Amino acid sequence: MKVGFIGLGKMGFNMAENLLEHGHELIVFDLSREAVVNLACKGAVAAASLRELAGLLEPPRVLWLMVPAGEPVDGVLRELSPFLVPGDIVADGGNSRYSDSMRRSDELSEKGIVFLDAGTSGGLEGARHGACMMVGGERSAFEAVEPLLADMCLPGGYAHTGRSGSGHFAKMVHNGIEYGMMQAMGEGFNLLDASGFGFDLAEVARLWSNGSVVRGWLMELASRAFQRDPGLGTIQGKIADSGEGRWTLEAALEQGVPLPVIAASLFSRYRSRSENNMSDRLVAALRHEFGGHGFTENKG
Amino acid sequence: MKVGFIGLGKMGFNMAENLLEHGHELIVFDLSREAVVNLACKGAVAAASLRELAGLLEPPRVLWLMVPAGEPVDGVLRELSPFLVPGDIVADGGNSRYSDSMRRSDELSEKGIVFLDAGTSGGLEGARHGACMMVGGERSAFEAVEPLLADMCLPGGYAHTGRSGSGHFAKMVHNGIEYGMMQAMGEGFNLLDASGFGFDLAEVARLWSNGSVVRGWLMELASRAFQRDPGLGTIQGKIADSGEGRWTLEAALEQGVPLPVIAASLFSRYRSRSENNMSDRLVAALRHEFGGHGFTENKG
Repeated sequence: MKVGFIGLGKMGFNMAENLLEHGHELIVFDLSREAVVNLACKGAVAAASLRELAGLLEPPRVLWLMVPAGEPVDGVLRELSPFLVPGDIVADGGNSRYSDSMRRSDELSEKGIVFLDAGTSGGLEGARHGACMMVGGERSAFEAVEPLLADMCLPGGYAHTGRSGSGHFAKMVHNGIEYGMMQAMGEGFNLLDASGFGFDLAEVARLWSNGSVVRGWLMELASRAFQRDPGLGTIQGKIADSGEGRWTLEAALEQGVPLPVIAASLFSRYRSRSENNMSDRLVAALRHEFGGHGFTENKG
Repeated sequence: MKVGFIGLGKMGFNMAENLLEHGHELIVFDLSREAVVNLACKGAVAAASLRELAGLLEPPRVLWLMVPAGEPVDGVLRELSPFLVPGDIVADGGNSRYSDSMRRSDELSEKGIVFLDAGTSGGLEGARHGACMMVGGERSAFEAVEPLLADMCLPGGYAHTGRSGSGHFAKMVHNGIEYGMMQAMGEGFNLLDASGFGFDLAEVARLWSNGSVVRGWLMELASRAFQRDPGLGTIQGKIADSGEGRWTLEAALEQGVPLPVIAASLFSRYRSRSENNMSDRLVAALRHEFGGHGFTENKG
């Protein structure tokens, strides 16, 4: 089907390429002209602006957004919506916060535009060769974009999760679980590494990917990473986070739900970026104050 | 090959059945005569005692243990070892503590008997149709039992992990990671359930098993569990633990390695069995003491 595709970053570019390969007609826009041109070379129609993009589609339009969460999504919707008409469908496949998606859905519905929040998982490989999508919003709109979903996702890899916001809520929780799983793996391999047994971590991760209880895609990725760099010596142990873990905890605080492991995994990420912090200095200072225990002096 | 198989519980029975199916000759023993008879019906030779079992094998013997961790393993080794000779190989495929395995290896090596610690993962399905094994001990003994390993495990599903103890150490850490992964999943589905979106948890787990970053066997098992019982209403939320999580933390304490998520997942299990405990009563009491906050009275 014909679709306006907005946002050709790493994920968006791969998804758009996948859609082209499946025979869909894409009108594409991105702030990067280079990305637009690259995709035009692969058969997409390049739009020079969101206005032009809207003009190249006939109502009811289907628009797919893959832009960074937050203000970029609002910016695109603000600029785009004047050119849209009732019945048009806008799907946000990015990592937007579910509460933002619910607000956007309300705002657009005032103009008769239907908004879908399509949480997307599977990484760059999934984006290129088949992702997993959790889609919230009106079922009729979900059904209207199903030809796209079926081609963008692996078999069985998409579902309508419920009302507006549910898709991005599910994706947020998925990422919270991912934080916990990854942190558990990190801790386990750290212990193997410190054990004195001289484990070949690449071999253990490869082994655990074959028939163990903890097998899965993350273990396969760990196996790949260790194979490339056995001690992961090229990577600095500072872990970024892009919001979903924090939002998961915020949702848990709203609902009064205990998430000790997901919280610990988020705080471990903060910890990884916070050496020699006030907490550490205070605890070292207190040990010195009451017990005369030594501490390591800070070199100004 | 010919092997003495000791211990026909849930895991052991399935593994023995798998070995028979692959054409190995099994002499089997278990304290349960019923299990022995059942396996004899499937082609194994039944032994009435460990002495008889040893007598039915020619040196160098290969013996495979699948008995509960702790004293049962020591008991079998005490009773069995007088009938063994230098060059015999004893593999412990159970969930023994790695430090016990190192001790047993030392003790048996005094008699020239070679001990292998074979950590086994994959659950009952793996035991029956192909497991994942981490094997510690002398490489030559590992190679001697490789025909068994190749048939008991999935392709690529076994490896020599290093010196004595390393197999059970790796299995212990595997289980620690498993604790963390399962707890992260538990917390995530709890939040989905409390969210008010009315998620179909079976559908979400099924969806996440197809192409998501958190896909893997545990997610498939969650999908199966939710499909059978959508609210898991038949299961009480009290989680047992069989030692590996605790041993993982003890090893971390010995090495000075931080395991915040694995610790939180173990303590969450303790927590699940510890309602209305002293900690909860004290915190409620203190809130009352300083702030006059109400508390729920215990009905004696």
